[in-house]
Amino acid sequence: MSYTDKDSFEPLVVLQFSPTTPTITKDWVIKRLTSSHTEDEGSGLLARYEHTPENQDSIIVIGATLDRLLAGAEEIRIQKWYKNKGLTDFIVADIEHFENSENPSNILYKSEKQRIIYEEIQNLHPARHETTVPGIRKKTFVPENDTILNILTDHDYLVNFFPLHDKEDIKLLEYDWFASRTSMFKSQDIHKIRNYFGENVAYYFAFLEFYTKALVPTAVLGLLLSFTPTSDFFKYSFFCFFNVIWWTVFMERWKRLTNKLAYEWGTLDLQIFERPRSRYFGDLHRSPITDKIERQYPAWKRQVKKYLVSYPIIMGCLIGSLTVYFTFYRTQKKMHAEYPLENPKNPLETKLMRMAPSTCYSLAVIPIKLFYRKLATFLTDYENHRLQTAYENNLTSKLFIFFFVNCFAGLFYEAFFNVNYANVVQLLTTLVIVNAIILKFTEQVVPFILKTFKKSQLKGQSVEKVSEVRQQIKTLTPFEGTYGDYLTIFEQYGYIALFSAVFPWVALCGLINNIFELRADAFKYCYVYQRPFAQPANNIGSWHHAFDILSSIAIVTNTALIAMQPSVREYFSSYSNVEYIIIFVAAEHILLTLKFAIDFAIPDVPHEVEIARAKTLYESSQALRREREHKSERAQSMTTKL
Amino acid sequence: MSYTDKDSFEPLVVLQFSPTTPTITKDWVIKRLTSSHTEDEGSGLLARYEHTPENQDSIIVIGATLDRLLAGAEEIRIQKWYKNKGLTDFIVADIEHFENSENPSNILYKSEKQRIIYEEIQNLHPARHETTVPGIRKKTFVPENDTILNILTDHDYLVNFFPLHDKEDIKLLEYDWFASRTSMFKSQDIHKIRNYFGENVAYYFAFLEFYTKALVPTAVLGLLLSFTPTSDFFKYSFFCFFNVIWWTVFMERWKRLTNKLAYEWGTLDLQIFERPRSRYFGDLHRSPITDKIERQYPAWKRQVKKYLVSYPIIMGCLIGSLTVYFTFYRTQKKMHAEYPLENPKNPLETKLMRMAPSTCYSLAVIPIKLFYRKLATFLTDYENHRLQTAYENNLTSKLFIFFFVNCFAGLFYEAFFNVNYANVVQLLTTLVIVNAIILKFTEQVVPFILKTFKKSQLKGQSVEKVSEVRQQIKTLTPFEGTYGDYLTIFEQYGYIALFSAVFPWVALCGLINNIFELRADAFKYCYVYQRPFAQPANNIGSWHHAFDILSSIAIVTNTALIAMQPSVREYFSSYSNVEYIIIFVAAEHILLTLKFAIDFAIPDVPHEVEIARAKTLYESSQALRREREHKSERAQSMTTKL
Repeated sequence: MSYTDKDSFEPLVVLQFSPTTPTITKDWVIKRLTSSHTEDEGSGLLARYEHTPENQDSIIVIGATLDRLLAGAEEIRIQKWYKNKGLTDFIVADIEHFENSENPSNILYKSEKQRIIYEEIQNLHPARHETTVPGIRKKTFVPENDTILNILTDHDYLVNFFPLHDKEDIKLLEYDWFASRTSMFKSQDIHKIRNYFGENVAYYFAFLEFYTKALVPTAVLGLLLSFTPTSDFFKYSFFCFFNVIWWTVFMERWKRLTNKLAYEWGTLDLQIFERPRSRYFGDLHRSPITDKIERQYPAWKRQVKKYLVSYPIIMGCLIGSLTVYFTFYRTQKKMHAEYPLENPKNPLETKLMRMAPSTCYSLAVIPIKLFYRKLATFLTDYENHRLQTAYENNLTSKLFIFFFVNCFAGLFYEAFFNVNYANVVQLLTTLVIVNAIILKFTEQVVPFILKTFKKSQLKGQSVEKVSEVRQQIKTLTPFEGTYGDYLTIFEQYGYIALFSAVFPWVALCGLINNIFELRADAFKYCYVYQRPFAQPANNIGSWHHAFDILSSIAIVTNTALIAMQPSVREYFSSYSNVEYIIIFVAAEHILLTLKFAIDFAIPDVPHEVEIARAKTLYESSQALRREREHKSERAQSMTTKL
Repeated sequence: MSYTDKDSFEPLVVLQFSPTTPTITKDWVIKRLTSSHTEDEGSGLLARYEHTPENQDSIIVIGATLDRLLAGAEEIRIQKWYKNKGLTDFIVADIEHFENSENPSNILYKSEKQRIIYEEIQNLHPARHETTVPGIRKKTFVPENDTILNILTDHDYLVNFFPLHDKEDIKLLEYDWFASRTSMFKSQDIHKIRNYFGENVAYYFAFLEFYTKALVPTAVLGLLLSFTPTSDFFKYSFFCFFNVIWWTVFMERWKRLTNKLAYEWGTLDLQIFERPRSRYFGDLHRSPITDKIERQYPAWKRQVKKYLVSYPIIMGCLIGSLTVYFTFYRTQKKMHAEYPLENPKNPLETKLMRMAPSTCYSLAVIPIKLFYRKLATFLTDYENHRLQTAYENNLTSKLFIFFFVNCFAGLFYEAFFNVNYANVVQLLTTLVIVNAIILKFTEQVVPFILKTFKKSQLKGQSVEKVSEVRQQIKTLTPFEGTYGDYLTIFEQYGYIALFSAVFPWVALCGLINNIFELRADAFKYCYVYQRPFAQPANNIGSWHHAFDILSSIAIVTNTALIAMQPSVREYFSSYSNVEYIIIFVAAEHILLTLKFAIDFAIPDVPHEVEIARAKTLYESSQALRREREHKSERAQSMTTKL
């Protein structure tokens, strides 16, 4: 196995410091990164400054020797194909049995190499003998909690920490994904995406595609029905019934696909082997599972924080945001009453005063949402979750509740209290179409223009070739997780699911939007965002619950919407009001029961995955048995010899 | 390790043949049972006739040497305490590390020994060279499906196959359980019960006790409320709200206890290592999990049978039984109209004619229920489930649906369509109290009297000591599974959950009944039934779902019942009918949401069990890693030597 030259290694990961960071601190970081693991508890990586006149040595690029990477792959239990056997933990000593072992540098994907470096840096502490960090005044260190990343972040020295994009890999990826003309009509190669971006991002794209495909029947049926000359009642109820079954089956099939992918990517038993987050703090205890010393934080404390701090605060936020909404609503009503459209005294003033409340509201909502997102992150940090997956699930739930109330409060109010369908239609149209365009614009078009602009600036600035690293730092937006993207789909699914029985065209809009959305998102991940660290995942986390809850609520809203249509009431005109309501409540209960029955009848885990899991469990338990038999045989033969 | 004398071994299990069984067949069975596993594919057990003048050699008693039992324990993966480590698969070669190894005959409980013999006999086939069975004319054998037990059962030669009770063990068990005067107020020692009866029965008693304890607050609160001088609405709704939360928490806590017990009994991962049922048939294939040759039956065929045969037949039965019920109902109404109680022409005729329909119905229901139970068993057999647990779950579901409709159809009809609360109260009283007494009488008192009677008969018949084996055959009822007992609790819980908001005293009746029920059942299992084979289990199977479904339905029925009370309607007299209904539908939805939220918030598996599972998984995966490392090291050192 080969060692690369210490200074000319391939850079994989970038650490960018703030300009105020003392040079001795940066030097110390490089020393910690490069010193060997055995002697000095360092990372044993390769690291150097990215020298350019302009950046004042604020950028460190990091790589690693192949041996170091392979050892790291074993340590963090990266799954690789064992020849003729399937996925297993990669083990260096057994390397010749893994696929691609003829050429060891091809065993790991670049994203995996970057993840290995990421995990190493996440767990890098000051050396045991060090009581101070050069350039940083601080009283004491809590050795178990003070990783180098935490120290740097706490002093605002760390600006950015990300892996580098690989232009050649992107070229291979993008053609089928979004660049070629036929890509629009092809399924994504989800495994390619996973190999480049990691499981977390791959699950997002898998879900978006799966969801978009699931929209097709709904959209087509909705369209067909709206041209069918039958009674409204039949149309609505048939469509509603179809949707309940279709979306329940969809969620179940997605769960199965989720498990299949997790199996193919070797992340099924992720939680057990997942490493703690670097920001997770706690006292050192011996782990009851691995018997190693680990940080531990009592579960009851987390529960107390969750139920007594986080949830009440979130409740407060919900009430606050509803108050803002209804203040806006009342003001608007008052304005509309004061400035009627007919025979305005002063046409300009009328227009302005009528528009004022909604403009104010739209402006007020932006900082509220931003504030809430910061708050949700803060609270989730404060809850101190041990694993990244648990952290993300809790953050997702918080976002979900808030955005649910924010997105749908207005629609619910118009549909069920005001019973003003013209307003509902107008709101839906605005939200679905305008939102999609605005989001695309702010999320993708603007950053792309900025990027092109900055790139041209860079090119203009100096004739010499600007380094790839600097270019990625300058032109790409830092990756902030998949939350925003999921929220977009979630919002759209909400419009479709909650109101589709009566407004079937929403599904069609969503479908058309998503076909473009998927490609636009793909482009965004490749050319607008900095590359994310590959993050293992075995499902889409709490988003699944969010969609599931929405599906259940949808049954309630859709039956209610249908019942509230005058044409349907007419259809049931021989029934009294009370009977009419009871009929629809019964129908709703039957649909809910149907949903749960389907949920229950379809197993979550596909048969082949079940078998594969059982097989792994069986094999490892057999190994444990063999080991114990060998041990006792050895012990016996020892005693016999004595 | 000691061998026992071939003829004076301790009998553990009994095979009883019908008088028509040819002696050569019985001889052949003994030969198969006793011939060694390695030479002749026999069971390697000990077996002999129980000679008495009367029984014509129709009884074979079976035992085994200790070595045979220990080997069997290893084979069927019996879990034992590894010193200082916890439960692991028992391994003979490693015996000195297990608790009680100083005295190997104490390592296994008698119930475990009997289970080992049971499993062996379940898997005993004719020897490979045998093409016919002595005394049985049959064309061909399908070697994989023709176990000896199946052959004997198919020819109606097998009357009984059960393990023997152990009087000394029962003495130790019964004192704390039901025999001492203080036992009424003590918790059961569930582990003792498990050691004697196996997990399946132990779960039943654990559930009965847990459920009975859970009744206390409901019963007390119901009693208190009925004496509180507040509005009916407040009483009912408070009690309903309390019950929703209480029973949801109860079900969740039971799930946690279930998992804790499964962990303590080493049955958590039961499904993976569970052996196929002996009646399971299929073609021989290599198992994808264990890589051994196993019978396999395609899952899709089972699904087809389930959805296209079983379910439609069950639907038909339900419709049939409802038809019977409503025929009875109409006849009764007609009779009541034709023979009014006031001024009867002929008092006797009136009484008789008024009672006739309900008497006919009660008589008709008994064969219907028996028939349905046979049918459900037949259909479940026909579905050909591989594992005993799956078999029982499917049988349970079938029973559950039918008994649900049968027990509650009348009550539902009276409460929601007739709105005749006097009838509901009367029905509930009859069902809860009379049912309990009748059931106890037919299930326990009668068999006990019969037993005492038969025993005295046996004693009178011959002065010599009647053998223990014969006495158990003669005086004890064959064990027929825990279904009947679960059905009894299920029915009672139904009355309590579905109607308790308005009739709170039902819970009190249930509580008092159960305190006696538990002891009576315990007595029944010890002295009325033949001992059941210990059957591993890690939960109460589909019964959990049955109770959970009932809890959800209970929310619907209780809010409806409250809403239908005239006093409550008066309380809301300022609201219109439509508003009133919508208020209660909303309340019902909120309660349902609450239930699901609690379900979701309480984790199913207790933290310590989660950790223990992770630990096992971690350790066995580490063993697999170490094994592979060793292998490759050996391979490398081999190559270096070469």
